[in-house]
Amino acid sequence: MSAQTNSRVILNKYIPDNDFSTSYYSVDSSQPVPTAESLAPGQVLIKVDSLSIDPHLRFFAAESNPSIYRYELGEAVYSIGVGVVTASKSDRFQPGDIVRSDQFRWADYTVVDEKALDKMPSNDVPPSTYLAYIGVAHFGKTKQGETLLVSAASGAVGQIVVQLAKARGARVVGYVKSLGADAVINYKTCGDFDKAIKEAAPEGVDVYFDNVGGEFLDAVLLNLNFGARVVLCGTMSTNGLDRSKVYGVKNLDLLVTKNITINTLFYALLSGSQVETDFIAEVSELAEQGKIQLKMDVRNGLESAAPALMDQFQGKNFGKVIVKL
Amino acid sequence: MSAQTNSRVILNKYIPDNDFSTSYYSVDSSQPVPTAESLAPGQVLIKVDSLSIDPHLRFFAAESNPSIYRYELGEAVYSIGVGVVTASKSDRFQPGDIVRSDQFRWADYTVVDEKALDKMPSNDVPPSTYLAYIGVAHFGKTKQGETLLVSAASGAVGQIVVQLAKARGARVVGYVKSLGADAVINYKTCGDFDKAIKEAAPEGVDVYFDNVGGEFLDAVLLNLNFGARVVLCGTMSTNGLDRSKVYGVKNLDLLVTKNITINTLFYALLSGSQVETDFIAEVSELAEQGKIQLKMDVRNGLESAAPALMDQFQGKNFGKVIVKL
Repeated sequence: MSAQTNSRVILNKYIPDNDFSTSYYSVDSSQPVPTAESLAPGQVLIKVDSLSIDPHLRFFAAESNPSIYRYELGEAVYSIGVGVVTASKSDRFQPGDIVRSDQFRWADYTVVDEKALDKMPSNDVPPSTYLAYIGVAHFGKTKQGETLLVSAASGAVGQIVVQLAKARGARVVGYVKSLGADAVINYKTCGDFDKAIKEAAPEGVDVYFDNVGGEFLDAVLLNLNFGARVVLCGTMSTNGLDRSKVYGVKNLDLLVTKNITINTLFYALLSGSQVETDFIAEVSELAEQGKIQLKMDVRNGLESAAPALMDQFQGKNFGKVIVKL
Repeated sequence: MSAQTNSRVILNKYIPDNDFSTSYYSVDSSQPVPTAESLAPGQVLIKVDSLSIDPHLRFFAAESNPSIYRYELGEAVYSIGVGVVTASKSDRFQPGDIVRSDQFRWADYTVVDEKALDKMPSNDVPPSTYLAYIGVAHFGKTKQGETLLVSAASGAVGQIVVQLAKARGARVVGYVKSLGADAVINYKTCGDFDKAIKEAAPEGVDVYFDNVGGEFLDAVLLNLNFGARVVLCGTMSTNGLDRSKVYGVKNLDLLVTKNITINTLFYALLSGSQVETDFIAEVSELAEQGKIQLKMDVRNGLESAAPALMDQFQGKNFGKVIVKL
């Protein structure tokens, strides 16, 4: 009996600016599925269940990308994914465990180091849930009766932030009411940010989950309560801007007088910690009760991954894009 | 035998702007020392050993002060102090304990609630040591071989920050070389902050103890290493400025890409926690070895307190001002 082949999406050439063709990628089936014996200590073999397809992956493949976050040519590309462990040389993971990582190869099977893996409650829970949980629960310490404000609440992480905070009994101010937020700020139409936040959160903000930074963050600082927690997830408003043109934040002195804490979401540093255990316990229950949902645009099969990525640059997606294998 | 009297410094009238006379204060000896029996649950009676005399105390007494941080007329004023417990209705404190608080009345004896009290290793250790310790050790997590940068290193807190960080084996960049800093930045003469920091800390900064904020903080952000910790203690550069004139910080997006944590020093929230226990253990040893020193301008007796305060506005002090009782 011949070994099962492992289909993989390979990047063959870096992509020039303004090109959204999928021709730079190909599906290669020339290699067998890695065997349990071939794993190095600490490595885990995973059958891929789903892949998260996000716009920044186009940057990882870009000709003009000068950073260390760039795919190798001739290698399988990678993104966030969820899957089931089939073999393990790690003490933390057993066959059958459901895991996530941002190091999933676009392939039927992927090998990931234990350091980059987190356990998940089930494969029905979107992979971004862990990031949202760390922000809402671990750093945000969001409690019953508090007010959480999330910018870009319609994004893959933001949507889950709203739901986790609601489940914890918080009042939630976001951008998308249909998800269960109690009040909505439309940053495009609201005019004065400070005024809009005061109207939406007259009791002040206890937790701010920031996806945008810049001028909106500056206005939020004016509205934070004593002891508030700021969680920085993204900096959408300043991404890619020349540093001299970036909005300067003026209200940082309020961090001191209001005793504000700021943390960023590097979940990889929390792998294997108590946070992960708490996450499994809290989110498993919410998932069973159907309280965690994400508007998703699900595509099927490995060959749909590159087209799913390029569709996002042409407005052809309808919510968070996932490829199911 | 009549009860011992408790001399206290009373504020009789709020002080007009530009007035540095000590005539607004008087020493009152009409009241007895509080008895153990008179303490409410949680209260602690302390024999005052020394008082910290800092410029902001003038603001607490100012006619033009609109804030809640304003002394009551006819009452004893207060500041940071260190003393010895003589009676206690708190489970945390016993007679003989050496304690500090920012709620010490200027008096022979003061009554302070346990919530505002911290234990001290000895009364030779300056009261600002606890603040410096929380920044360097608890939030800063300063380790052997790391680089700590402290702005305003010559201040009462900054001086101790330098010494605690050196004792932990860190490379220290500050403003005052004589205290043991390995490199010095003179923010008044260095010109370009970013360039000056790069020269003083070519290996990058792991812990930044910030007393100034604003433009210097912005330049530090460019020089922080991955996983660095920022501790905000003061905002000297923007204090009292109209918010529209404050320097806008542009480099906050680096908090996300570099996984930076920001905390502020509200020590009162850590009273009675493990941090306090760790502080006593680490600093007791350093104090015994003579590794904690502070350039001090020591005045003697309660009647020297108000003059010591006003002297600071006329350049008549020589380092950190302390009144010994």
